[in-house]
Amino acid sequence: MDTYCAAVDWGTSSFRIWLLSDDGSVIAERRSHEGMTQAAKTGFENVLEAHLSAMQASQGLPVVICGMAGSRQGWREARYLTVPAKLSDIVETAVRIESAGRDIRILPGLAQRDPQHPDVMRGEETQLLGAFSGDRTTGLACMPGTHSKWVRVSGGKATGFTTYMTGELFGLIARQSILRHAVGETDSCDPKNPEFTRAVAEAYRDPTGVSRLLFSIRAGQLLYSRNSAGSFARLSGLLIGWEIAAARVEFGEGDEIHLIASGKLFGLYEAAFRSLGQTVTALDADEAVLKGLITGAWQFWPTTSNQPDYGQIKA
Amino acid sequence: MDTYCAAVDWGTSSFRIWLLSDDGSVIAERRSHEGMTQAAKTGFENVLEAHLSAMQASQGLPVVICGMAGSRQGWREARYLTVPAKLSDIVETAVRIESAGRDIRILPGLAQRDPQHPDVMRGEETQLLGAFSGDRTTGLACMPGTHSKWVRVSGGKATGFTTYMTGELFGLIARQSILRHAVGETDSCDPKNPEFTRAVAEAYRDPTGVSRLLFSIRAGQLLYSRNSAGSFARLSGLLIGWEIAAARVEFGEGDEIHLIASGKLFGLYEAAFRSLGQTVTALDADEAVLKGLITGAWQFWPTTSNQPDYGQIKA
Repeated sequence: MDTYCAAVDWGTSSFRIWLLSDDGSVIAERRSHEGMTQAAKTGFENVLEAHLSAMQASQGLPVVICGMAGSRQGWREARYLTVPAKLSDIVETAVRIESAGRDIRILPGLAQRDPQHPDVMRGEETQLLGAFSGDRTTGLACMPGTHSKWVRVSGGKATGFTTYMTGELFGLIARQSILRHAVGETDSCDPKNPEFTRAVAEAYRDPTGVSRLLFSIRAGQLLYSRNSAGSFARLSGLLIGWEIAAARVEFGEGDEIHLIASGKLFGLYEAAFRSLGQTVTALDADEAVLKGLITGAWQFWPTTSNQPDYGQIKA
Repeated sequence: MDTYCAAVDWGTSSFRIWLLSDDGSVIAERRSHEGMTQAAKTGFENVLEAHLSAMQASQGLPVVICGMAGSRQGWREARYLTVPAKLSDIVETAVRIESAGRDIRILPGLAQRDPQHPDVMRGEETQLLGAFSGDRTTGLACMPGTHSKWVRVSGGKATGFTTYMTGELFGLIARQSILRHAVGETDSCDPKNPEFTRAVAEAYRDPTGVSRLLFSIRAGQLLYSRNSAGSFARLSGLLIGWEIAAARVEFGEGDEIHLIASGKLFGLYEAAFRSLGQTVTALDADEAVLKGLITGAWQFWPTTSNQPDYGQIKA
């Protein structure tokens, strides 16, 4: 297969690159920790070229990028598109740079310019572009992560969104608060642990009480010698239950939820929704971002053989 | 004035010692960072004797201690008293040790042995003992801090309590989360900053949404260049408003609130309650702990001249 372009998901602390053929199939892939923070020191061009060279990419191969490389502290600022915004406009407003003889496009993030509820995203908009296409043009997207995003999409437009700091709070509380004594060395949560779903339910029912419920994890260890795996699962469940409760207040009950996630996070959120009796449509986040990137590439660099009917992604 | 005893408030990361006359007045005072964590390494007796020596305390002067020195990782475990518990029982169940020829008493903490709502405190029970005496035997105590405690006291008994991780969450979020970019170098919050009371009101009205409101501080900086003093005040207000909302759900609206606090925290909570139209009785936390300690001392080491009518403390 001929390599058609390279695609990059450049996060704050992670870097992923794929070489793609013109039907969007993956020829090669690499990952590293050279996210924006790192690349801002060592140079974005250096990081990109080193990976392309290791993958033996051809000279002049074009590159489409999403994520933090487009932030003000990134490679080149790709200014936020303001919601409500057509997802396809993400491609229209990409910035173009020339670097090492390549045509490079950086997709912008989305901003909600509401003084009462300002919000921003970078990277997730490309997942949305990949996830909402073909017949799927409307729904409520739940995109778990360090900063979980919930996005309302209607007729191919992102109309509003909200960020919950679930993943970041989890990491800080589990590793650095007094609760670290209770969660110990545990580093992953089994979605089947009954403490997980119980905590999801408690936080969903009483989101106001999450601050109290958190400390009870420490007290439960001191008074009842509760084990660290259960405490870890409980902490995870409380924060995910809180997020889902808050999002349901924010976005209401009407919309179909599209859970866009991969790996362990997918398993946890899927189990959380199921335990709350909420059905979700599952979409794989890795596939979604790849499809968003290739959608951009097809528009930047049209070919006769590319396939706008790439099809809908599945989990 | 003759020195009657020494009194120590031994926290996790702080140490305070007073020399007291038998009417409870302060003859000398020292503070250091030799809290439990530090003293567990260098030796509790060493730390105590060094301070007593620096204050020229007499040989054999007795010492009453509250706080983390009585925890399992402390000097000697003073096992939790289970609520409901008479505050005076804190004195009855103190543990006694002999060290360097001194009579040393360590007051126990309180535990709520409810599997649905386990909770613990060490140190605050001594403030309660000092604050609830004489005519004041009933009320709802709000004791802000790293781990804020709200305690229902009825007829001189602590009947139930709840811990909110407000102060610890504030520190982690302000210094280590993505919001650190928004709050910058700011290190104290002016209770008069309108962003503070506005955020208190928002979180009080919508405690479920605190997770969302937190990230909006970061977005507000990116999209509207909001300043760091306002962002810091906003973060502080959101977390305090959340705590008050959660406590009002937990404890209801009926009781008189006794705010037991000192210094900056006192100013913030007092302003928060006032902005919500809630009246509180203000009590100084430093005075409260001292009065709790001398109350214990009088019982351990009775004198003819000590004064059970020391009077009620004021803010």
